[in-house]
Amino acid sequence: MKLLIINGPNLNLLGQREPGVYGTESFEACLKKLRKYYHHVTIEYYQSNIEGEIIDVLQKAAFVYDGIILNAGGYTHTSVAIADAVKAIRTPVVEVHISNIFAREQFRHISMLSPNAKGIITGFGLESYRLAVESFIKPY
Amino acid sequence: MKLLIINGPNLNLLGQREPGVYGTESFEACLKKLRKYYHHVTIEYYQSNIEGEIIDVLQKAAFVYDGIILNAGGYTHTSVAIADAVKAIRTPVVEVHISNIFAREQFRHISMLSPNAKGIITGFGLESYRLAVESFIKPY
Amino acid sequence: MKLLIINGPNLNLLGQREPGVYGTESFEACLKKLRKYYHHVTIEYYQSNIEGEIIDVLQKAAFVYDGIILNAGGYTHTSVAIADAVKAIRTPVVEVHISNIFAREQFRHISMLSPNAKGIITGFGLESYRLAVESFIKPY
Amino acid sequence: MKLLIINGPNLNLLGQREPGVYGTESFEACLKKLRKYYHHVTIEYYQSNIEGEIIDVLQKAAFVYDGIILNAGGYTHTSVAIADAVKAIRTPVVEVHISNIFAREQFRHISMLSPNAKGIITGFGLESYRLAVESFIKPY
Amino acid sequence: MKLLIINGPNLNLLGQREPGVYGTESFEACLKKLRKYYHHVTIEYYQSNIEGEIIDVLQKAAFVYDGIILNAGGYTHTSVAIADAVKAIRTPVVEVHISNIFAREQFRHISMLSPNAKGIITGFGLESYRLAVESFIKPY
Amino acid sequence: MKLLIINGPNLNLLGQREPGVYGTESFEACLKKLRKYYHHVTIEYYQSNIEGEIIDVLQKAAFVYDGIILNAGGYTHTSVAIADAVKAIRTPVVEVHISNIFAREQFRHISMLSPNAKGIITGFGLESYRLAVESFIKPY
Amino acid sequence: MKLLIINGPNLNLLGQREPGVYGTESFEACLKKLRKYYHHVTIEYYQSNIEGEIIDVLQKAAFVYDGIILNAGGYTHTSVAIADAVKAIRTPVVEVHISNIFAREQFRHISMLSPNAKGIITGFGLESYRLAVESFIKPY
Amino acid sequence: MKLLIINGPNLNLLGQREPGVYGTESFEACLKKLRKYYHHVTIEYYQSNIEGEIIDVLQKAAFVYDGIILNAGGYTHTSVAIADAVKAIRTPVVEVHISNIFAREQFRHISMLSPNAKGIITGFGLESYRLAVESFIKPY
Amino acid sequence: MKLLIINGPNLNLLGQREPGVYGTESFEACLKKLRKYYHHVTIEYYQSNIEGEIIDVLQKAAFVYDGIILNAGGYTHTSVAIADAVKAIRTPVVEVHISNIFAREQFRHISMLSPNAKGIITGFGLESYRLAVESFIKPY
Amino acid sequence: MKLLIINGPNLNLLGQREPGVYGTESFEACLKKLRKYYHHVTIEYYQSNIEGEIIDVLQKAAFVYDGIILNAGGYTHTSVAIADAVKAIRTPVVEVHISNIFAREQFRHISMLSPNAKGIITGFGLESYRLAVESFIKPY
Amino acid sequence: MKLLIINGPNLNLLGQREPGVYGTESFEACLKKLRKYYHHVTIEYYQSNIEGEIIDVLQKAAFVYDGIILNAGGYTHTSVAIADAVKAIRTPVVEVHISNIFAREQFRHISMLSPNAKGIITGFGLESYRLAVESFIKPY
Amino acid sequence: MKLLIINGPNLNLLGQREPGVYGTESFEACLKKLRKYYHHVTIEYYQSNIEGEIIDVLQKAAFVYDGIILNAGGYTHTSVAIADAVKAIRTPVVEVHISNIFAREQFRHISMLSPNAKGIITGFGLESYRLAVESFIKPY
Repeated sequence: MKLLIINGPNLNLLGQREPGVYGTESFEACLKKLRKYYHHVTIEYYQSNIEGEIIDVLQKAAFVYDGIILNAGGYTHTSVAIADAVKAIRTPVVEVHISNIFAREQFRHISMLSPNAKGIITGFGLESYRLAVESFIKPY
Repeated sequence: MKLLIINGPNLNLLGQREPGVYGTESFEACLKKLRKYYHHVTIEYYQSNIEGEIIDVLQKAAFVYDGIILNAGGYTHTSVAIADAVKAIRTPVVEVHISNIFAREQFRHISMLSPNAKGIITGFGLESYRLAVESFIKPY
Repeated sequence: MKLLIINGPNLNLLGQREPGVYGTESFEACLKKLRKYYHHVTIEYYQSNIEGEIIDVLQKAAFVYDGIILNAGGYTHTSVAIADAVKAIRTPVVEVHISNIFAREQFRHISMLSPNAKGIITGFGLESYRLAVESFIKPY
Repeated sequence: MKLLIINGPNLNLLGQREPGVYGTESFEACLKKLRKYYHHVTIEYYQSNIEGEIIDVLQKAAFVYDGIILNAGGYTHTSVAIADAVKAIRTPVVEVHISNIFAREQFRHISMLSPNAKGIITGFGLESYRLAVESFIKPY
Repeated sequence: MKLLIINGPNLNLLGQREPGVYGTESFEACLKKLRKYYHHVTIEYYQSNIEGEIIDVLQKAAFVYDGIILNAGGYTHTSVAIADAVKAIRTPVVEVHISNIFAREQFRHISMLSPNAKGIITGFGLESYRLAVESFIKPY
Repeated sequence: MKLLIINGPNLNLLGQREPGVYGTESFEACLKKLRKYYHHVTIEYYQSNIEGEIIDVLQKAAFVYDGIILNAGGYTHTSVAIADAVKAIRTPVVEVHISNIFAREQFRHISMLSPNAKGIITGFGLESYRLAVESFIKPY
Repeated sequence: MKLLIINGPNLNLLGQREPGVYGTESFEACLKKLRKYYHHVTIEYYQSNIEGEIIDVLQKAAFVYDGIILNAGGYTHTSVAIADAVKAIRTPVVEVHISNIFAREQFRHISMLSPNAKGIITGFGLESYRLAVESFIKPY
Repeated sequence: MKLLIINGPNLNLLGQREPGVYGTESFEACLKKLRKYYHHVTIEYYQSNIEGEIIDVLQKAAFVYDGIILNAGGYTHTSVAIADAVKAIRTPVVEVHISNIFAREQFRHISMLSPNAKGIITGFGLESYRLAVESFIKPY
Repeated sequence: MKLLIINGPNLNLLGQREPGVYGTESFEACLKKLRKYYHHVTIEYYQSNIEGEIIDVLQKAAFVYDGIILNAGGYTHTSVAIADAVKAIRTPVVEVHISNIFAREQFRHISMLSPNAKGIITGFGLESYRLAVESFIKPY
Repeated sequence: MKLLIINGPNLNLLGQREPGVYGTESFEACLKKLRKYYHHVTIEYYQSNIEGEIIDVLQKAAFVYDGIILNAGGYTHTSVAIADAVKAIRTPVVEVHISNIFAREQFRHISMLSPNAKGIITGFGLESYRLAVESFIKPY
Repeated sequence: MKLLIINGPNLNLLGQREPGVYGTESFEACLKKLRKYYHHVTIEYYQSNIEGEIIDVLQKAAFVYDGIILNAGGYTHTSVAIADAVKAIRTPVVEVHISNIFAREQFRHISMLSPNAKGIITGFGLESYRLAVESFIKPY
Repeated sequence: MKLLIINGPNLNLLGQREPGVYGTESFEACLKKLRKYYHHVTIEYYQSNIEGEIIDVLQKAAFVYDGIILNAGGYTHTSVAIADAVKAIRTPVVEVHISNIFAREQFRHISMLSPNAKGIITGFGLESYRLAVESFIKPY
């Protein structure tokens, strides 16, 4: 199984940015643990601050990966274009959020992506990514 | 580890009710698989159609369980009282939804509970419950 | 033909409560007349002030009755859970209101139940119940 | 007893227009059955696509009929002028809808007429008209 | 004079739940002081987490008590059904809130009950109950 | 000077319709007094319940009259088409209302016509028409 | 007959302020013409930029004048307090506006005062004041 | 191919009405050019200021024409009844607007008709009609 | 203990203004009874119709009184400036209302002051002031 | 004449993406037909998923092309920045949509670009592009 | 150059009021520094808690000063009357705010004054006043 | 001191684009003057039309500059992602606008960035940039 994790804007700052909200672990450290724990799964990773590049990657990933894990950061709440890309491709996309977006500012309570996602995992810190990987595994 | 799954109104009809939305598996069948797969975890189960009984159970569970998995059904979108109970107790509560509530009617897009939940897992069918159990496990 | 009339909160006070809005006849008197007039129809009656009990009864009635007549009182305007129950069962549910809810406070103008009801009868006083029974009869 | 049924815009197309929503029976066929079943009631019928003509007829009917059954079609949701006419006359007006307007587009959920109607019957197909006639009969 | 205090959902947790908002005193301790201070007044107490049971009690209390003091907790903001019960009975109902609900989340700023209450006392901590008792006393 | 008074839907019922709101005088009686008092002004009168006929008359009046006094009744609050006609013609149009529309239902608080009117006179009963005539007179 | 004209904030600048909207005539010039034309009417005048002083004057005027003509300027759209004063006194108050407030910014479309006014005259320039005086005269 | 152009209220004034918005050419001149350019297409024309007459014509045209080009003028933004007629008939209806309605007042930004139209052409002046005719031609 | 009661606009008319809403007792009579009943408390009184003067008094009172009882009348619903003053000073301010503002017009349901008040007492008539005084007394 | 067609995000997937909405023809096939049919017009083509690149191209095209045909895809509904670019340049921009955006989700009903476009063509499938080219041709 | 600084309600408490938001420096200290630093500029100062007095001063200042620096405090968000005064006078008015009003309560995010101001400076603490003075200086 | 000015979409057109709104000076000319006047400050400049590139630059600038001056153009009103970047970095960011955005279209009245900015300077034309530089200087 091949999975692609796509992180959107400012998520390259994980570990440095607002540690009270996002924790002190970098995404690289998290990725290392994930790959070790799910050693039978190929987990690739892409990050961009540019909305359209995320769309480019989503379109290309569609033919290569069994699943996509997407944390679109700030674009979550505003991007019809990414939402359209998620809908346009057939690979299932799981939406993840590190923080509990429903416990933050009003404008973070709405995700443009959710209606098109396979499922949504919100608020478990970096564990949200592990649960997203887990969601692609069929244990029984 | 002891976990309690609480299901709210109409979830006793799972497998019979709107199979296009909720699937054809009963919750009992799902529970059996969950207990077998997570055999080292004690998973108990409670269902009620009555809002206030769910609050009663949340209050009592607070002192007995390590975690609560709550699918409050239709009360998700309307109940300040259950949300207050989730906030009042110290046991972490993970909110789950079988269907992707964001791909359904507008009034299902808002959850009163989410701001007080530890995390939220939405749209994976009955797998949402397994991911919620998984979220209480610390693998690394 | 077997029909079940379900009355929600405060409808047990009919005849005593706000007679300017709801009239001075008790529901028992109304029921007596209904049973006499529609003597070939079995009409049973249930009242509860508890939202979840109404859901319990709706779920059970689904297998026993040919039709349900539901006046959910104040829950009409707030209960996603009862609306879900109406949708989940296959027995047709006719929604009735004694008063003209559209001529009263703004918050009474919206019914959560209506989209899932077979039909809605509003504003004829206790005659609304008779018209609901009549709606289950196929005269031609 | 003399009743007048007034149908508004596009209801002259009944039986041809969107049969999935409005059925395949023409209103004339329905009227024939109604007159036969309620042979002791004089039921007259008027249809117009013009808002102001409906007002003209409402004003004139006020002195001739014991009751009016009004399906104002698309004007239901927009016409303050027809609503004013319903309020201005003393003959009771029963509002009917063939389809369940609350299960359709958002803009059909609001009726300008309802606050001024004697009662409202919604969603029973052409049976809505029969129930409206029935509502003028006092059986006990 | 006989008064009934009714507390709604989660108020049985007073003293334990969110002490920063609700204080550390249990309601029983408060009740004891109240009864001692107003020794000439009979003060009874009822608590339930179930919306419909609060309605049951309101209906019964109507014939027994001179006044009711109601803190409906989370149901304050959502319950048309309790509001209808308050309106239906003739005993005056004083609405109380421990915390200043207007200084908290937006959804707590609206009370369904207030339009039907005799008066409203908000934000004085447990003293709100004493002021409510005081409101039934006519000193001059 | 030639003026045209145009009355919209239901204003032909003046004197009979809701006398508490609109008074007991017919418009004909009012017109008689107006013509007598302003004997040097030619005052003509047109009434229709049909929106499009009011537009027809507005278009034709544009070349014949020095001013138009328009009470569009229920169309005041809904008609973009009449508002466009008022804007399209060059003859000044004074909007009048018999009742104080701002002291009535919310939907009567907005007039589509007002932005295009020369001026608006509201709430003086039938005197509103006299003030409108007066507004076309230049006394100094 | 004794009338009082009250002008609110910035209306002391008439003739200087935004002549495109308010014209080039000062209010004093207008007042002179008014007094000459209605020589049998005592017309007094008061202006203040202070909301509470307008309330003071309204309260005192109530016992002295037969009618009040009020242009509350910017307070029209915001002042519950002046609206309460208009409602509290028994002297009829006619609300006037020089410009057509409905053809200007959105926030000027709502008047807090209108529901309590005897009538409203809007958009006739300084002629609005003359029509307001005229409204107190009973010609037939 | 037979096409019918239907123009709604005030479009009979084209060339005279607000030339800054609608240009100085009359619709008749435009029609002449259209017929000459598309000489192989039969283009008929109907105009009415009356909402219900437009519905009458739409219903009749349904059986006679291959396509309808509809500029409903002010009714575009308010008429559920015309929208229903467009939906009820099977002939494709192309919606046209002379001006760019999205660059004008807020209330012109919403068209009730658009969801039921085959396509919408907006803002090209009278050229909008030519593009609508063009849309019925299949060049390849 | 020294308390200051501040009354806002139109409250100087108490006893004369809308007796159906505010009763027939003047505030002076009420004050007399209050001072007699709470003879050990110094109760001073200030009234102004001017928003800014109420702010002046609040600022000065801050250093002199143990508590302030504020009925800001119509400014309750609009004044950010008074709300800021209440927040700026350290003396606790109890907000009172004579009538049940939640049973009146929509615009009276929101108080700008409440979030900054120590507590709010609403709807007990002039008794609201006594309960506010009582709230400053610590009986146990 | 030189025209530039600019397609926004996900329109590179045309023919593959949601064929029920967008059809099965690729844009390249469409372009080929267009160029053949309008052989006297130079039609160039640009596609990007990146919002800012579309702005770059719009700015550069301004000096080279006689007209621009823009389908901004998902950015249509969210991009103030593209709308500003359309406004900033002098070359006329025609906005096109393949699907009828008004018959889809609510958030697609609003276009940020429309107020600045020369004209808008919506819902004709790939024919929308041909009509846009046609709109730049002056046939008479 | 002569400038006038006008401070609105509660700004006389600067240094004492909510130091976490507004700092601990009094406005007098700030003014002293400003006058010393900009010694070639005459800077006068006026403060009032009364909305109408601020209008009085704005009107008078118009003829005396080269520029006005206005911090209208709580009136910023509510006063149409002050906004009208700013618009009425020709002297440029720079709006300043000490705190970042966009990072505070929702009701502080809207300024009635901004559309009429020459420019707006927000959030720099007392430095906002210096930048406002600076804005009147033309350095190149 | 090192400052970075970042300009967003379409600001590269300054001097050419809508001169009525933005003036006729290019940003390069402005920058030259700024650098000359503040010769002791290093002022660097970056412009991009791409949202994500602005985020990239913000993140990198965080470690190099003492302050950032950001005019995000059209992204101001829509970009949660840029707002998050501003919040994530520690370098203070001053938000500037050339035009008075509050005197323009409604959608320009809201800035996503403001809550995270150190301060906001709006409406002074290109002088806004100079005041922003000035804001980083501590003169006393």
